[in-house]
Amino acid sequence: MDPMIIELGYALDTFYFLMCTALVMWMAAGFAMLEAGLVRSKNTVEILNKNVLLYGVACTVYLFIGYNIMYPSAPVNSLIPGIDFLLGEDHTLESVLSGDEDAPYYSSMADFIFQAVFAAATMSIVSGAVAERMRLWPFLVFAIFMVSVIYPVSGYWKWGGGFLDEMGFQDFAGSIVVHAAGAAAALAAVILVGARKGKYGPKGEVRPIPGANLPMATLGMFILWMGWFGFNGGSELKIANLEEANAVAQIFVNTNAAAASGAVVAALFAKFLFGKTDITMTINGALAGLVSITAEPLLPSPGLSVLIGAVGGIVVVVSVLALDKLKLDDPVGAISVHAVPEFGGFLPLCSVTQRQRLWGN
Amino acid sequence: MDPMIIELGYALDTFYFLMCTALVMWMAAGFAMLEAGLVRSKNTVEILNKNVLLYGVACTVYLFIGYNIMYPSAPVNSLIPGIDFLLGEDHTLESVLSGDEDAPYYSSMADFIFQAVFAAATMSIVSGAVAERMRLWPFLVFAIFMVSVIYPVSGYWKWGGGFLDEMGFQDFAGSIVVHAAGAAAALAAVILVGARKGKYGPKGEVRPIPGANLPMATLGMFILWMGWFGFNGGSELKIANLEEANAVAQIFVNTNAAAASGAVVAALFAKFLFGKTDITMTINGALAGLVSITAEPLLPSPGLSVLIGAVGGIVVVVSVLALDKLKLDDPVGAISVHAVPEFGGFLPLCSVTQRQRLWGN
Amino acid sequence: MDPMIIELGYALDTFYFLMCTALVMWMAAGFAMLEAGLVRSKNTVEILNKNVLLYGVACTVYLFIGYNIMYPSAPVNSLIPGIDFLLGEDHTLESVLSGDEDAPYYSSMADFIFQAVFAAATMSIVSGAVAERMRLWPFLVFAIFMVSVIYPVSGYWKWGGGFLDEMGFQDFAGSIVVHAAGAAAALAAVILVGARKGKYGPKGEVRPIPGANLPMATLGMFILWMGWFGFNGGSELKIANLEEANAVAQIFVNTNAAAASGAVVAALFAKFLFGKTDITMTINGALAGLVSITAEPLLPSPGLSVLIGAVGGIVVVVSVLALDKLKLDDPVGAISVHAVPEFGGFLPLCSVTQRQRLWGN
Repeated sequence: MDPMIIELGYALDTFYFLMCTALVMWMAAGFAMLEAGLVRSKNTVEILNKNVLLYGVACTVYLFIGYNIMYPSAPVNSLIPGIDFLLGEDHTLESVLSGDEDAPYYSSMADFIFQAVFAAATMSIVSGAVAERMRLWPFLVFAIFMVSVIYPVSGYWKWGGGFLDEMGFQDFAGSIVVHAAGAAAALAAVILVGARKGKYGPKGEVRPIPGANLPMATLGMFILWMGWFGFNGGSELKIANLEEANAVAQIFVNTNAAAASGAVVAALFAKFLFGKTDITMTINGALAGLVSITAEPLLPSPGLSVLIGAVGGIVVVVSVLALDKLKLDDPVGAISVHAVPEFGGFLPLCSVTQRQRLWGN
Repeated sequence: MDPMIIELGYALDTFYFLMCTALVMWMAAGFAMLEAGLVRSKNTVEILNKNVLLYGVACTVYLFIGYNIMYPSAPVNSLIPGIDFLLGEDHTLESVLSGDEDAPYYSSMADFIFQAVFAAATMSIVSGAVAERMRLWPFLVFAIFMVSVIYPVSGYWKWGGGFLDEMGFQDFAGSIVVHAAGAAAALAAVILVGARKGKYGPKGEVRPIPGANLPMATLGMFILWMGWFGFNGGSELKIANLEEANAVAQIFVNTNAAAASGAVVAALFAKFLFGKTDITMTINGALAGLVSITAEPLLPSPGLSVLIGAVGGIVVVVSVLALDKLKLDDPVGAISVHAVPEFGGFLPLCSVTQRQRLWGN
Repeated sequence: MDPMIIELGYALDTFYFLMCTALVMWMAAGFAMLEAGLVRSKNTVEILNKNVLLYGVACTVYLFIGYNIMYPSAPVNSLIPGIDFLLGEDHTLESVLSGDEDAPYYSSMADFIFQAVFAAATMSIVSGAVAERMRLWPFLVFAIFMVSVIYPVSGYWKWGGGFLDEMGFQDFAGSIVVHAAGAAAALAAVILVGARKGKYGPKGEVRPIPGANLPMATLGMFILWMGWFGFNGGSELKIANLEEANAVAQIFVNTNAAAASGAVVAALFAKFLFGKTDITMTINGALAGLVSITAEPLLPSPGLSVLIGAVGGIVVVVSVLALDKLKLDDPVGAISVHAVPEFGGFLPLCSVTQRQRLWGN
């Protein structure tokens, strides 16, 4: 085959990865705006600082440590920075043109940064859960531990070829590896730091603490929605032929469909339960739809994706109520949005997924 | 021809569509921020909720109904969701490699989602016009009707191969189909719901109601400007050869040039009329420039595009004054920006356009 | 070679340019939000208006005048608008397929708009420096002069083939040409307009003037960070083969690494100096990291990029203190961020750069 064509495909796949990376990096701004908008104004500045710094810490730590643990065989980086870093190794023309079945087809640097922004996203989920109760520096120390060990290890289980992968476990774009891992850490942290003072009254009554800047929170939701096209779309890992291009397009359609129905159904369900709805439920619904479809954004039809998003939209409303019953204070819905709803999309899909994969498509 | 090359072109065209889709989806955030910033603070949260939910409703309804009406021959979707949706049909390699003149050259899923975000944009225009006067649920019911019937039918007339298309009517990226259609619905709604209480005094004097959050409104304008690159650029429908690549680049240049001059000219004209200018006029001018060029962003030279944007910038200022004379209350300039200015770009261009199209380019 | 492949490469390189252009245009929103968030609320609206209008003025003036001066041999535009503009010339298939070594490989329209958004970015840097002290119209007159003459001439020296280029001067993506040029103009303007009233007490004590809207400023920083992928990534000028694709990917990794470490190190250094840190220092650190790496984002390894960003993060903190000592009032850190830190990345790298370039890679 004409090597020029292979090089062009390599360039297109790499460019596709880099555009998706920019979109996932953008999600860091989405988390920052969402969380800053939903906390009380007195804590706005601290959570902003937390979100910028956790992104900085996550990218740096993942570069030096996390990526190696998650992808032991990756060519890009090194536990001893400055050795093969200084050479900035990437795939050679020879290896790409080798014609081997597993010849690399996109830049390993592009692969690294796409993975790095995923690691940062995981940490952003945690920052929301401990909003208003955890100080900056302890949180950043936790971030170092999370991104250098916890996330890479759980990620390795699935994406690095670990036991979950060998079990045939399905997690297309990280519904579990990223969102549930983040939310599990979030849950642990929430139990550890306890509820915000005044959130639960002596008689166990729940005192709502409204967000201080809802336009900012809504903007954050839109940013996350847009970034999710890169998060799910990039997880197909290839676009440069007809089958892969169709797959990425289907993922865009399904991701958008699940978010759309998640928002609408959460609003309708809140209206049904409480007689009214508010923007916070709509935001949670959209994000729950996105998390739900993230488990498997490729195989479902658009119609089924609407259903998956709808389940997410209902589950998130129930979850918000349930967590308050359990006196688990989740200021920006980090747990409700990122841990619970995915089972709306994840569990019902496992079978479908397994079956269809076995069919060999 | 080497099938690999055709597949690469298919992948590039599909990727180009998906990136443009992400930019147009992003416009939903732009409309939300623009409108939330220009209304009174007491109505901020409702308009945010409206904008998120209308996007959700529009995407869902367009998926199940609108798209079929607008493109009766489209392969993607179905009035009975779950039938061919469940199969998630897209173009096969055979059809793409058939060599037919009208062989598909990009994913039909990508085509669908690009169309869907256009439908949502139309509805966002309406939401601005009825800001502060229409309740959430009635508005969403109207959105269902708009996106399932009104917009698809008017869209069909031009893009689906209807009578406007057969007449040789030119509307490159939807200046009429999207913006005037949206603004016409907006005008109808404005007449229906009437002016905001206190906007017009007993003696007919106009009481300005300043926007509550102008940084948010300015951000919304910037988001719309950025998204418009996808809106106009994607409307070329192809990029994967020299002629198309040059066309898309020209569209980027012209779109940016018209917006730039629209903003500057509106500010200068306001300064000339009132002795001062304000950010609202600048924002309206930029958007008017964008709408103006949308009728035909390809054929004009960059120099002519500056002129088209400038006309839009002047027209929008006049229109804002005229609507207030007519006691038509247009809180965020939805009608002034989206209906009126395009004639600045549209009418003078029809002849050029027709002539050049007849020349066969 | 198959002409279809050359056309596909041309299309991919053009698309890559246009996506990077959209990201750099987006930086205009970043500057607007950053500056609007860091000034006092009474000046928010004026600086927003300034930022939108300077972008409009910059794009228009650069189209008619600046681009010709900077690239005398460019085919796109003309000092007499409406002549070859009206033809909208771009590269012909013949010239692209000529097989000459210097045959064009991407649209000249795409080249123009990528350059235009760079010119606007330069001006945005100045607007921050004179925030709260320079009126709108005088500022815009200065913008015309800056973008039609000052920037194009300094740009010509390096990118247009002028003497700096002949000297072998290295400035990959415009660390000097864009950022230092902008900051030099900013410095001149700051000296000219003097400090904000009340910034420095009679005894020379510095009175901090906190930003009025830090979420907005943080959003601006994130927008700039995202846009910088287009700013640096696009400056490689080509992506459509393996070597170039790897280069662009490396630039993405290095740009992100420098910003990440810049933010973290600035926060740590501020904590060390003052016992606490604040979001403003974190924002300045991230931006300083970005500016630092912009001098040479390709050759350093990711590890070295972390170091370069760290130097930028320290330098910016020192610079903020030093400017106040000198009573140079830099409200949004325009000078500290855009002029000073790059020497962190720039100077130490010149030698490396030179050497490696001589090695012929």
